[in-house]
Amino acid sequence: TTSAVFLFQMGWGDLGAFGEPSKETPNLDQMAAEGMLFLDFYTANPLCSPSRAALLTGRLPVRNGFYTTNGHARNAYTPQDIVGGIPDSELLLPELLKKAGYVNKIIGKWHLGHRPQFHPLKHGFDEWFGSPNCHFGPYDNRERPNIPMYRDWEMIGRYYEDFKIDLKTGEANLTQLYLQEALDFISKQQASQKPFFLYWAIDATHAPVYASKQFLGTSQRGLYGDAVREIDDSVGKILNHLRQLGISENTFVFFTSDNGAALISAPKQGGSNGPFLCGKQTTFEGGMREPAIAWWPGHIPAGGVSRQLGNVMDLFSTSLSLAGLQPPSDRQIDGIDLLPVILQGKLIDRPIFYYRGNELMAVRAGLYKAHYWTWSNSWEEHSKGIDFCPGQSVSGVTTHTQEEHTYLPLLFHLGRDPGEKFPLSFASEEYQRAVERISGLVQQHKATLVPGQPQLNVCDQAVMNWSPPGCEKLGKCLKAPEPDPKKCSWPH
Amino acid sequence: TTSAVFLFQMGWGDLGAFGEPSKETPNLDQMAAEGMLFLDFYTANPLCSPSRAALLTGRLPVRNGFYTTNGHARNAYTPQDIVGGIPDSELLLPELLKKAGYVNKIIGKWHLGHRPQFHPLKHGFDEWFGSPNCHFGPYDNRERPNIPMYRDWEMIGRYYEDFKIDLKTGEANLTQLYLQEALDFISKQQASQKPFFLYWAIDATHAPVYASKQFLGTSQRGLYGDAVREIDDSVGKILNHLRQLGISENTFVFFTSDNGAALISAPKQGGSNGPFLCGKQTTFEGGMREPAIAWWPGHIPAGGVSRQLGNVMDLFSTSLSLAGLQPPSDRQIDGIDLLPVILQGKLIDRPIFYYRGNELMAVRAGLYKAHYWTWSNSWEEHSKGIDFCPGQSVSGVTTHTQEEHTYLPLLFHLGRDPGEKFPLSFASEEYQRAVERISGLVQQHKATLVPGQPQLNVCDQAVMNWSPPGCEKLGKCLKAPEPDPKKCSWPH
Repeated sequence: TTSAVFLFQMGWGDLGAFGEPSKETPNLDQMAAEGMLFLDFYTANPLCSPSRAALLTGRLPVRNGFYTTNGHARNAYTPQDIVGGIPDSELLLPELLKKAGYVNKIIGKWHLGHRPQFHPLKHGFDEWFGSPNCHFGPYDNRERPNIPMYRDWEMIGRYYEDFKIDLKTGEANLTQLYLQEALDFISKQQASQKPFFLYWAIDATHAPVYASKQFLGTSQRGLYGDAVREIDDSVGKILNHLRQLGISENTFVFFTSDNGAALISAPKQGGSNGPFLCGKQTTFEGGMREPAIAWWPGHIPAGGVSRQLGNVMDLFSTSLSLAGLQPPSDRQIDGIDLLPVILQGKLIDRPIFYYRGNELMAVRAGLYKAHYWTWSNSWEEHSKGIDFCPGQSVSGVTTHTQEEHTYLPLLFHLGRDPGEKFPLSFASEEYQRAVERISGLVQQHKATLVPGQPQLNVCDQAVMNWSPPGCEKLGKCLKAPEPDPKKCSWPH
Repeated sequence: TTSAVFLFQMGWGDLGAFGEPSKETPNLDQMAAEGMLFLDFYTANPLCSPSRAALLTGRLPVRNGFYTTNGHARNAYTPQDIVGGIPDSELLLPELLKKAGYVNKIIGKWHLGHRPQFHPLKHGFDEWFGSPNCHFGPYDNRERPNIPMYRDWEMIGRYYEDFKIDLKTGEANLTQLYLQEALDFISKQQASQKPFFLYWAIDATHAPVYASKQFLGTSQRGLYGDAVREIDDSVGKILNHLRQLGISENTFVFFTSDNGAALISAPKQGGSNGPFLCGKQTTFEGGMREPAIAWWPGHIPAGGVSRQLGNVMDLFSTSLSLAGLQPPSDRQIDGIDLLPVILQGKLIDRPIFYYRGNELMAVRAGLYKAHYWTWSNSWEEHSKGIDFCPGQSVSGVTTHTQEEHTYLPLLFHLGRDPGEKFPLSFASEEYQRAVERISGLVQQHKATLVPGQPQLNVCDQAVMNWSPPGCEKLGKCLKAPEPDPKKCSWPH
């Protein structure tokens, strides 16, 4: 069995099937109607790079090194001046799937380090079409180079130069390129009868948000909605392609997101987290609870709904299981195999850990969520208009200073109060019982935790995408400045 | 064709089909899957009585008299000391349907006045099982009588005495009684081949929230969720009953709510307005945008979705249309016939007016909403913990003083910003264009408006349910105090 993971930056509330009030995602809604909707599915971190590293390693960022210790409880990622990336010691899903004869392709944003040793083809992928970093820019190629696009080992151009993004109109045809890549890859593998793993990690819904001309202005949600519509349309086309090639019953497809909707850039550049609190960058539900759909015709009963607490790291273990492989036994794996959940309707009792940097901010077990630390962002940032919780403010919860609650965690019942607005009374029996249980899970977790070497501490202008492999052929090599490693600055 | 309207106090976000994250409403979701979901459906007022009066008259409360002028922009309803009620001059839907031979029944809360002249059987209903007011209590029958339950003309007991509600456990079997009434009524009409109008206006989700024993503790949303589950189950049973009797294709069924979820009593006694701002009592989307489903097998294509701006008043005009009747031509009717929308997919351009008392607070046209006045509730109330927007606070929008914006309305684009968090820039061309259009609609509306005599200004302890008709037979008559009419106090 082959598998495909679609990973986008979307919020829980961005799909019609999850209650987005414009209901403009007919293909994703159809995918859900034919497959299984996960209502309680999480990403491993409120930010993209660490979540992606977790998805591909099956391990929490604090284990695989995708975190920083430069400040307390800070979100870190891989901008182009980052020195670190995915360590060789980590075993990635595609590396493991190779043992079962899989051909692995990543389309879109890699985000696990852009320096040569971190290249996806050095970590198990056979093909790549996409870029190592976010499509920020345009840059002047002096202070900062434009981000390269790669085909496999080598760059084939740069954003804003060879791959246009019109920041004024929001027009870019990248999603169409990514779609064609996916269709071609699937056709090729089907023709050669090879099992495949397709990691379709496109980024049209990540600021700067873009859509192709044919989708611009088609959504009542504005540019962000246009991007969602184009992605929705593309998902429909990929699923149809699988059907037409007769391999839909052999292909497990999973759709989810790497962090909650970025409310900081709402409404034009950010989506919706539905009824949940705050968004990307935070460990409130809006930051980490994600839309999620499993699709596998003939195997997953149509219209299913699961309340399993799931996590992107489970896609690691589930994909291995589908390939008949075991996860590595020499290290802690945080993902679980979801097949019993998906195929037999089982519910597996497991906690969700919400981290910022190497600080365990919150833990969910069952319907209870305990916050050990609360923080939205600093007053200093907030006063500049950086707001991760626009229009939302829960006293003592969405705090602008880092508040420790270790000895008396804030507790919410996410069934009765999915929006984290009404902390349970510390004096209640319910509080005592739930916190006792969660504290046990935390102790167990911390006692066995072996943090990885933090990879996101050091930044250096010299390591930016000045001269990616292949730049010579294109005449696109740029001169790097002298090395000047510094502590990266992570404000939130 | 027969019609049934189900009216509950639920929020937009309370149904699985609308993105409630526990997805515990399989029957309502199935109703939506078999029928048509309305995403942009409104009630006529953020409070129950005026909305119900509007539904049954097809007219805004400011026209039919269901408002107060005791204070500026105050929500008023019909507590049991209210002197007023639905004026005889108003023509109610069941009165009109009688001309087409309909048998009309109301099950549940009437809320259009409890004094004899306002009795539902004097206003077109043939049968009644339910109560005139909310099920608040228990009272001592000295300061205040317990609310009576009626069968047709006469009372058959009182809440908390003959119809138990256990406020401690939340147990009450009322929904089961209301369900049985509905099933029996439908069977009877089917047997006698009579067209019918059933108005099933039950109140389990209105505080004090209750559920039957078999549903208590079954929801992960707590007591409120238990009540929703029981209602969901009942709706499923009624629709099944219509199917089994072979009359589902002759019965138009509509489900909606009379106001947004009451966040003031959340989480235990209040529901969810999904991604929308604030709740009941406010003219933000959370106060007036409602879940809505039309169901009519064989006529409405399954799985339909409509973006028509709808209103509970449309159920008046639509039901008349189904009966082959014309709405009265001697008065302004605000409801529109939704059949072209439902059967032919048409979109009718019409505004939504958001009133508090006789003040036009806001207007929606297309995707734009202009606020002419903003107010959540007073600082005085807010400081006592009365909060219509818990955890939500939008600067200059969820104001605690009544703020006038008549000359520079706050404008939101509800497609890009359904949560009313990002007012459009006054200087933008988009603002100018949209406000110009809406101002025209407002001028037109105000120029032709003939306000009805306000019915909700005067309260008197003497008019409470001391001695409802039928009390003698039951030995349940109580002595009323001397008349002492006063201005009713409407704090918000």
